[in-house]
Amino acid sequence: MKNSFFNRFVPKQPKFFSLLEHLANILKEAADTLAESMGHVTPQERETYYKKIKEVERRGDQVAHQVLDELETTFITPLDREDINALASGIDDVIDCVNSCAKRINIYNPHGLGEAAKELCRFIQQEADCICKAVNELETFRKNPAALRGYCVALHDLENQADDVYELFIKRLFEEEKDAVEIVKIKEVMQELERTTDAAEHVGKILKNLIVKYV
Amino acid sequence: MKNSFFNRFVPKQPKFFSLLEHLANILKEAADTLAESMGHVTPQERETYYKKIKEVERRGDQVAHQVLDELETTFITPLDREDINALASGIDDVIDCVNSCAKRINIYNPHGLGEAAKELCRFIQQEADCICKAVNELETFRKNPAALRGYCVALHDLENQADDVYELFIKRLFEEEKDAVEIVKIKEVMQELERTTDAAEHVGKILKNLIVKYV
Amino acid sequence: MKNSFFNRFVPKQPKFFSLLEHLANILKEAADTLAESMGHVTPQERETYYKKIKEVERRGDQVAHQVLDELETTFITPLDREDINALASGIDDVIDCVNSCAKRINIYNPHGLGEAAKELCRFIQQEADCICKAVNELETFRKNPAALRGYCVALHDLENQADDVYELFIKRLFEEEKDAVEIVKIKEVMQELERTTDAAEHVGKILKNLIVKYV
Repeated sequence: MKNSFFNRFVPKQPKFFSLLEHLANILKEAADTLAESMGHVTPQERETYYKKIKEVERRGDQVAHQVLDELETTFITPLDREDINALASGIDDVIDCVNSCAKRINIYNPHGLGEAAKELCRFIQQEADCICKAVNELETFRKNPAALRGYCVALHDLENQADDVYELFIKRLFEEEKDAVEIVKIKEVMQELERTTDAAEHVGKILKNLIVKYV
Repeated sequence: MKNSFFNRFVPKQPKFFSLLEHLANILKEAADTLAESMGHVTPQERETYYKKIKEVERRGDQVAHQVLDELETTFITPLDREDINALASGIDDVIDCVNSCAKRINIYNPHGLGEAAKELCRFIQQEADCICKAVNELETFRKNPAALRGYCVALHDLENQADDVYELFIKRLFEEEKDAVEIVKIKEVMQELERTTDAAEHVGKILKNLIVKYV
Repeated sequence: MKNSFFNRFVPKQPKFFSLLEHLANILKEAADTLAESMGHVTPQERETYYKKIKEVERRGDQVAHQVLDELETTFITPLDREDINALASGIDDVIDCVNSCAKRINIYNPHGLGEAAKELCRFIQQEADCICKAVNELETFRKNPAALRGYCVALHDLENQADDVYELFIKRLFEEEKDAVEIVKIKEVMQELERTTDAAEHVGKILKNLIVKYV
């Protein structure tokens, strides 16, 4: 297959777009599972959710790798290969962050994560949603970039809101909580949730660059 | 403008250099504001300084994005586009780190940051200064690289000195301070200050690569 | 030398491979020194080992920089220049992580790091070993990729095992240790050891991409 001379010149546009859509859906699944896990606080449940999300993350890795493989063996790509690569790695990074959140919840096992953690999870879900919809625009955004532009703005806004929630929460945590070990546990988890919203916004920046470059 | 065929072939060298100088000046402004903030320790003042620096950081983002836009629409660039891009991202990363320092001072709000934090801020200011001067050399360094080489050496030395200050400080902090929560607050801020000096040295490495490549 | 017109067209394949082997051996040296340091727990000994490893890391920097220099001045390279560059940076990153582990042991100076830290060091040694052997395959893997493929699998497995050790350890640490300051010290060191095993696995991913691309 890879060595078929003819094959290398056949445009495989739909393949790349459908792989990226697949990857975005895996991110959505990871984000939804993380949000769901917030309602389950026993160590056993937390471990189960971590294993679930880890399995989702591995599927993400495979799809991201498939994109790389395709890039190596395809001659004509629908966007420059560095752009497809950046997008796949960017989405994969968000999935890795979600996995890292679940891992930290499992290994640090803080007593209660509270409302702010749930809120951050909801932001991550909304960002995953935006990324799914944005990826669906890739085939058509050159003719009509309005929708894609809208998702970029939304990703930027969501991250800003998440920042505010995170900053206010950490401020209060360090003012009010007196148990240093509990503070460390909660901080490690919340930092990773916030880092995940950043990683999602980074995908927004990659998408914005596509508009600058191709429209 | 972007679609003007003719325009794409006109060398826009001064534009790139002046954008990079603008970005370096924004870094200088951020570093100076951070250093100034060290003298103001009430939560209100810290929040005000964080907001100030956040606004500076946003201007930096805009200029870094302008560089990207220019790269996409300019045919002949004074240095390879990956080099201009690396330099702009590198300087932007330092500005992001400065912003992150101000954010951590604001949300962790440690009682006293002490002399070591002030020293690290002075190193960051000196590094920002070096970067400004180095960027001013970009138009002429191929003929006369001595000055640029000097700034690279200076950036390397400053980072080494900052490392020593940071390491000695953390060692003492963990030996002497007994309040675990205060330790965590101070550590989070000092780690970010040190990371900022690293990010500035990384710009030095990018500049050094320019000398290797073009001289 | 650099300006010799003729020189730029002479393939320098062995040079790149021997530089990468040299870099991998420096990683091995750093990993072995870190493992050895685990048996020495006084602050003075820890500082001595940190200085030793820092010196090794500087040699690594120099070799990584030599690779960059060669890439700039060589016209025909045995692998695409971005691949050689990725590999050299990847190995250099692992060395940096080992250095960062030694630094954290020195500045946080936790009472006892225990068996889990020693185990992680052994994983890092084994990973360094794999990377050395993998780099030795670079000249021949296009004809016979089996050995290189095996090292990639091994790097992946080692990182997975290291993850399990790390996660179990942190879980227990936060359940059992009551001294918050000691927890912070140990966590900072163990996180960096785990990050080092990740960085080594990342080299495995770069090597795996070479197989996809060239075989």
